[in-house]
Amino acid sequence: MDNFNHDSGRYERLGFPEIIFGQSKTVEDISHILQQFFKQEKNALITKLQHEKAKLFIEQYPNAFYDEVSELFILNRLKETNHNDQVAILSAGTSDIGIVNEAYYTLAFLNIGARRITDVGVAGVHRLTEKLEILKRFKVLIVVAGFEGLLPTVVGGLLPQPVIAVPASVGYGVAKGGKAALNSMLASCANGITVVNIDNGYGAAMAAVRILNTFKAL
Amino acid sequence: MDNFNHDSGRYERLGFPEIIFGQSKTVEDISHILQQFFKQEKNALITKLQHEKAKLFIEQYPNAFYDEVSELFILNRLKETNHNDQVAILSAGTSDIGIVNEAYYTLAFLNIGARRITDVGVAGVHRLTEKLEILKRFKVLIVVAGFEGLLPTVVGGLLPQPVIAVPASVGYGVAKGGKAALNSMLASCANGITVVNIDNGYGAAMAAVRILNTFKAL
Amino acid sequence: MDNFNHDSGRYERLGFPEIIFGQSKTVEDISHILQQFFKQEKNALITKLQHEKAKLFIEQYPNAFYDEVSELFILNRLKETNHNDQVAILSAGTSDIGIVNEAYYTLAFLNIGARRITDVGVAGVHRLTEKLEILKRFKVLIVVAGFEGLLPTVVGGLLPQPVIAVPASVGYGVAKGGKAALNSMLASCANGITVVNIDNGYGAAMAAVRILNTFKAL
Amino acid sequence: MDNFNHDSGRYERLGFPEIIFGQSKTVEDISHILQQFFKQEKNALITKLQHEKAKLFIEQYPNAFYDEVSELFILNRLKETNHNDQVAILSAGTSDIGIVNEAYYTLAFLNIGARRITDVGVAGVHRLTEKLEILKRFKVLIVVAGFEGLLPTVVGGLLPQPVIAVPASVGYGVAKGGKAALNSMLASCANGITVVNIDNGYGAAMAAVRILNTFKAL
Amino acid sequence: MDNFNHDSGRYERLGFPEIIFGQSKTVEDISHILQQFFKQEKNALITKLQHEKAKLFIEQYPNAFYDEVSELFILNRLKETNHNDQVAILSAGTSDIGIVNEAYYTLAFLNIGARRITDVGVAGVHRLTEKLEILKRFKVLIVVAGFEGLLPTVVGGLLPQPVIAVPASVGYGVAKGGKAALNSMLASCANGITVVNIDNGYGAAMAAVRILNTFKAL
Amino acid sequence: MDNFNHDSGRYERLGFPEIIFGQSKTVEDISHILQQFFKQEKNALITKLQHEKAKLFIEQYPNAFYDEVSELFILNRLKETNHNDQVAILSAGTSDIGIVNEAYYTLAFLNIGARRITDVGVAGVHRLTEKLEILKRFKVLIVVAGFEGLLPTVVGGLLPQPVIAVPASVGYGVAKGGKAALNSMLASCANGITVVNIDNGYGAAMAAVRILNTFKAL
Amino acid sequence: MDNFNHDSGRYERLGFPEIIFGQSKTVEDISHILQQFFKQEKNALITKLQHEKAKLFIEQYPNAFYDEVSELFILNRLKETNHNDQVAILSAGTSDIGIVNEAYYTLAFLNIGARRITDVGVAGVHRLTEKLEILKRFKVLIVVAGFEGLLPTVVGGLLPQPVIAVPASVGYGVAKGGKAALNSMLASCANGITVVNIDNGYGAAMAAVRILNTFKAL
Amino acid sequence: MDNFNHDSGRYERLGFPEIIFGQSKTVEDISHILQQFFKQEKNALITKLQHEKAKLFIEQYPNAFYDEVSELFILNRLKETNHNDQVAILSAGTSDIGIVNEAYYTLAFLNIGARRITDVGVAGVHRLTEKLEILKRFKVLIVVAGFEGLLPTVVGGLLPQPVIAVPASVGYGVAKGGKAALNSMLASCANGITVVNIDNGYGAAMAAVRILNTFKAL
Repeated sequence: MDNFNHDSGRYERLGFPEIIFGQSKTVEDISHILQQFFKQEKNALITKLQHEKAKLFIEQYPNAFYDEVSELFILNRLKETNHNDQVAILSAGTSDIGIVNEAYYTLAFLNIGARRITDVGVAGVHRLTEKLEILKRFKVLIVVAGFEGLLPTVVGGLLPQPVIAVPASVGYGVAKGGKAALNSMLASCANGITVVNIDNGYGAAMAAVRILNTFKAL
Repeated sequence: MDNFNHDSGRYERLGFPEIIFGQSKTVEDISHILQQFFKQEKNALITKLQHEKAKLFIEQYPNAFYDEVSELFILNRLKETNHNDQVAILSAGTSDIGIVNEAYYTLAFLNIGARRITDVGVAGVHRLTEKLEILKRFKVLIVVAGFEGLLPTVVGGLLPQPVIAVPASVGYGVAKGGKAALNSMLASCANGITVVNIDNGYGAAMAAVRILNTFKAL
Repeated sequence: MDNFNHDSGRYERLGFPEIIFGQSKTVEDISHILQQFFKQEKNALITKLQHEKAKLFIEQYPNAFYDEVSELFILNRLKETNHNDQVAILSAGTSDIGIVNEAYYTLAFLNIGARRITDVGVAGVHRLTEKLEILKRFKVLIVVAGFEGLLPTVVGGLLPQPVIAVPASVGYGVAKGGKAALNSMLASCANGITVVNIDNGYGAAMAAVRILNTFKAL
Repeated sequence: MDNFNHDSGRYERLGFPEIIFGQSKTVEDISHILQQFFKQEKNALITKLQHEKAKLFIEQYPNAFYDEVSELFILNRLKETNHNDQVAILSAGTSDIGIVNEAYYTLAFLNIGARRITDVGVAGVHRLTEKLEILKRFKVLIVVAGFEGLLPTVVGGLLPQPVIAVPASVGYGVAKGGKAALNSMLASCANGITVVNIDNGYGAAMAAVRILNTFKAL
Repeated sequence: MDNFNHDSGRYERLGFPEIIFGQSKTVEDISHILQQFFKQEKNALITKLQHEKAKLFIEQYPNAFYDEVSELFILNRLKETNHNDQVAILSAGTSDIGIVNEAYYTLAFLNIGARRITDVGVAGVHRLTEKLEILKRFKVLIVVAGFEGLLPTVVGGLLPQPVIAVPASVGYGVAKGGKAALNSMLASCANGITVVNIDNGYGAAMAAVRILNTFKAL
Repeated sequence: MDNFNHDSGRYERLGFPEIIFGQSKTVEDISHILQQFFKQEKNALITKLQHEKAKLFIEQYPNAFYDEVSELFILNRLKETNHNDQVAILSAGTSDIGIVNEAYYTLAFLNIGARRITDVGVAGVHRLTEKLEILKRFKVLIVVAGFEGLLPTVVGGLLPQPVIAVPASVGYGVAKGGKAALNSMLASCANGITVVNIDNGYGAAMAAVRILNTFKAL
Repeated sequence: MDNFNHDSGRYERLGFPEIIFGQSKTVEDISHILQQFFKQEKNALITKLQHEKAKLFIEQYPNAFYDEVSELFILNRLKETNHNDQVAILSAGTSDIGIVNEAYYTLAFLNIGARRITDVGVAGVHRLTEKLEILKRFKVLIVVAGFEGLLPTVVGGLLPQPVIAVPASVGYGVAKGGKAALNSMLASCANGITVVNIDNGYGAAMAAVRILNTFKAL
Repeated sequence: MDNFNHDSGRYERLGFPEIIFGQSKTVEDISHILQQFFKQEKNALITKLQHEKAKLFIEQYPNAFYDEVSELFILNRLKETNHNDQVAILSAGTSDIGIVNEAYYTLAFLNIGARRITDVGVAGVHRLTEKLEILKRFKVLIVVAGFEGLLPTVVGGLLPQPVIAVPASVGYGVAKGGKAALNSMLASCANGITVVNIDNGYGAAMAAVRILNTFKAL
């Protein structure tokens, strides 16, 4: 039984490497995968890697990076870069910071500049409107929101760029698990907003990468 | 089998009369009920009375009023009144006008002044903010919204009055039937918004009546 | 990355301060927020703050108050007040006491008198009817119920005041999570009842505040 | 292909004959079944038989009985009987009369006396309490309710007999289709209430038959 | 705040005492309730009392009984009785034994003889059919089933007594939480089966008590 | 825009031709497709083709076959064949005959002998057990059931062959739409039953074809 | 009551004009809106305008265009343009053509070249792979799919561009209404796919517009 | 109370022995069952036996086998066999390995050769197509997939054998719990795929056994 069959042509085909989903893999599987990447002197990104598993690999690979809030693991710590910010990642409050960070570090891993703006909730809409000029400079807007998931709709009504909405599982009662935010975003009356799975900061980052890569090639 | 047992003490107990739900009643039942009210020279309000049923009663009672959009029937046409507006009924677009009207005519039936403001959708938030001064004058705000149902959240973040949110069944896909709007309103991060059943313009009006009656009595 | 952008104009706009949702915030975020409030000599309210997090802050701020049942944290302990009760908070049994307390202490934090009445379940409806005279004195009724969520309907059929229904996640089987109670309240045949999110004692209190503030201003 | 294989031993096994569900059967199938019963000089009961189908069979069998509201068809019209009422069928309003009738005529078909009491909604609980003495005389209580479905809970808290709750699909928004009423009844805090499928007046009648038959035999 | 208002008239009204739901009550509340019962020399039944809470009270009341599988607590241990069995409690396998026991001990607490038969699953239907003669002797059949929940349908097709179906939350995938079993029982094509909430062995017992009490009185 | 790109290699790849889903196609599209098949002198099968559409094509192709109950259309009427029955298609009652026929005629189209047995409901389990010897002769059992969907579980407990369960959308209340039957079949405690989509008689037939083709090749 | 408050600044703010949702608007409202656009000599796009409503306006505005399959209405017929295709709109079969057309004509209305490719279902994956070279030339891929909704996942695994997935409500059983396709797309293991509401071809087009506009400006 | 009534005739009836579901059984029950099998010198298979329970029995029966990933327990360790592989068990990634193993060891227990192929995810479809020749040799294909559950559809479009699809509960957001994968498989446009319950590797194995046994007998 051979468990890991590296999709080596993915970079050529899609412009980004294969990335590992950590949540449901065993320690043995992840250990095996990391060794393959390490031997080939490639960097690796693992998403949703639980704390107890991450601990083992941080000890084993002293150069690794792990963000506790987003449970994101990178085999070789990233270098500080100075390139221009292309993506803004917005959220309503500090509760969604895990998802914001998953998007942020995924972009960093792929060498794309991004900025996190995490205090623009709509219950006080002026906190968003006073930042409009700054926001107009980004090429793609990733907007994270839990509870009723309003923020992407308001952003989409004020700004012309691509808006990738990420519902967060933050909330309780009908908001628990993120379905209320998800449906709110899908049903949004703001035109042309697109949506990814609940808590999928990683997927939002990859959608931004698809947009940026396509136009970089022109 | 005696089908209609009028709750005659309701006005004394609650400050408003019994009102009739028309949707699932047979023509015979409604006919019987209207005769009782007519004989006692009382006015009657029937909600969600389908067009085909309403036709029969409009012919029979030439003084009756029927609003096609909201399917609301009133036995004795209301007089124009000049009293001050106490309740504002807001909606995002003209699609929700049936629910707006159900609330509006229920309040009119109970002799409470209301105003309909049906063009304040959040996809262009300025359409709302430029009306803030007018809106501050009302004692209760009823806010109707379909699709993602975000209008009550934005209103609740800008204005201090009681906000009664009414989800509308307007929409398609995940918005169909009004559950997305309902959950969005219940999960709202705006403080102190309350919600009634989907399409329940009547219930929102009655909630406003409870508030106004309680404070009128002081 | 600046995580907390205090909505300083909220009091002026809405008549109540910003309140903090503790459940999904990290210890670091909450610690940072509390320091801001402490420095400005303002009181702060945190809702749904888990026990393990609360412990740390109780030690740090000896003047703080924490109610274990509702997981509600207040930075500066409240003083006993003698003002008249304006809000009654009813529940069917002692199982809902966490939500009752969340509403109660939120009102206390905002200096509004409230009374808790937690033994008026409808399975023995006389326990409610014998308290009707007392209940008529309150301006707003908050009614908490889990399982089938019947209590607000019965209260709304007997009393004329605003009724804010709070579904509780208490129960098992179809009642687990509070959806049965929520839908029962939304579908209620009692006129003019409004509903907030499951377990949202805090939101019910804020809805009461909106009502009371609006009429205090007259 | 032989479509109808009469379960001839059912009466001996269970104490009641096989009954036909009309809704999804073709006209041809029902026609074939009725001929079998007619030839054997047996009476037959068909539930949920749509109007357009029923018309054909009423013409064909002049002795047949059809109740439009419940869509229930009986091959040989029932005789008026004078036996004592054993089952009370309660409902909150006239909207549920279709289900009430389905239970009533099923019992009549099986020669069991029943009484319909259709005006005891809980929004004015006195309408129920003033009938308690009469209700104590029945051996089984069938309680039908749509919307929030609370009537069985109130009945079960006041009366000691078996209570069979029938959720009705009457209502709109979250009440549409009857799930809110169903869950409310299942989650009821009143002890020992049992529930049948939404709109299943027939099933409630059969549950009463099981109870009455078992004790008749003693 | 007075938390426990004993419904002292319940026995006179309904023929059985008030019973305590332990799951969501605090240790303090339960402790207070048990003291009331203990002082009045009454026996008390608590359902769904978690192990960690139960431990405390078993130590405090050496005469108490606690069944770990059903989490049912009785203040004063029951005496062995010799009265005839009136209720049979059937289940498909040993996985449902917690619910079977909840029904069994509730009946025992109310002094009603019952028998547990826990090996009659439908995947090998002969295990049921060979017990038919024994089963015909009981007055009420409580039938517990998880997974697809089909046992009550098969029992109801073979036996004429009242059948009270109890869906169990046993199972995984679509069966997890018991909704598949619940809906299967409600939709049953066997006539006259009634259903209680998922895992509600207690409610099934009380439904049996209502039946037995009504006919004992004749 | 070229709408129909015939998957001409399907027969070689999978052993059966491409089949057309009629429900959501326009008359123009179907007309275009049928012409292609007709010109190539191939037979064609269209599933779930509504009556009003079918009428047009029956007139146009006098040799066509249309089964009204299953809404299945075949371009060239099938010849009576004498080959042995390999598949039994069971159902509980005549209500499911549409799905039974969809499976039956799909198999006939692919030249596979099948037999329909539509009176083996489990409410009287003897109707099934007395047919066991006959049923043992078939290689594959397709079992259709609506409502609670019990039949496949009972069949799977008595017979060793492959059992393909088809949930039917027949029923009302919780059974409406077929989800209750679907979940009951998926959760079945009978070993090794497999399930297809609700009302998918066609898919069940194709699953049988896969089994038969694989072993025919040996 | 003023029903239509044109958001005149939308073009300046977002780069595209306001578009009208026709489904839930009355004939009067739409008539009023079209007059406003007609007088201002602007073109107007109405989505999901039912046939019976559209007929009236086609007669009134002889220059209008209406696509029956997508129910899309354009006030002034579009001119044939020769500009390069920028967006490819893919679907698995002809059943989804309504949604494909909604996206196509929305793009045409906004003067963006698009091509429809409607025969690339995944059940025969070669139909997709043989078109890969053509597909690589487009800047944005809109992918429509009903039933299990897998086409966007396969496309996203083979091509590097932005993929906007549109679930279609085509299908029956668990696929009815489009939720299965929606969830399949949201859960997709292909990286960086984004999703819009069920049947929202219009929204997908607008998302493409946001991407194209942002990069045109560079 | 006798808890375990071995269905001793199952092997004769169905061709496979009774197997034990471990998840919801108590340690006492399982211990009792294992003793029965041990005394009769029969092998026993327990599925979904949690780690803490399994530990006890591994110590007690030194010859036992336990697979941690699938939580599957076998009383007597299996012998290595050399018989031909008849079943292929495919999965997209290593996250589903628990379910793959449950199917694999169940088949091994019943002495059927199987092979695990766990790296054929569709996001890079070539990983599947390059294995087609190998896959054509197996008689039955079990295909496990979580997230959007695409793999069985692609396999079913490329290969002619029976395909038994197993949805995995692997995933988060809308994929959590496996419902998205389940519905995707049921709605699959690939012909003749059948589905078992979420995470039911055991059931898929048994479905394969039914197929193989039926044709072995010929």
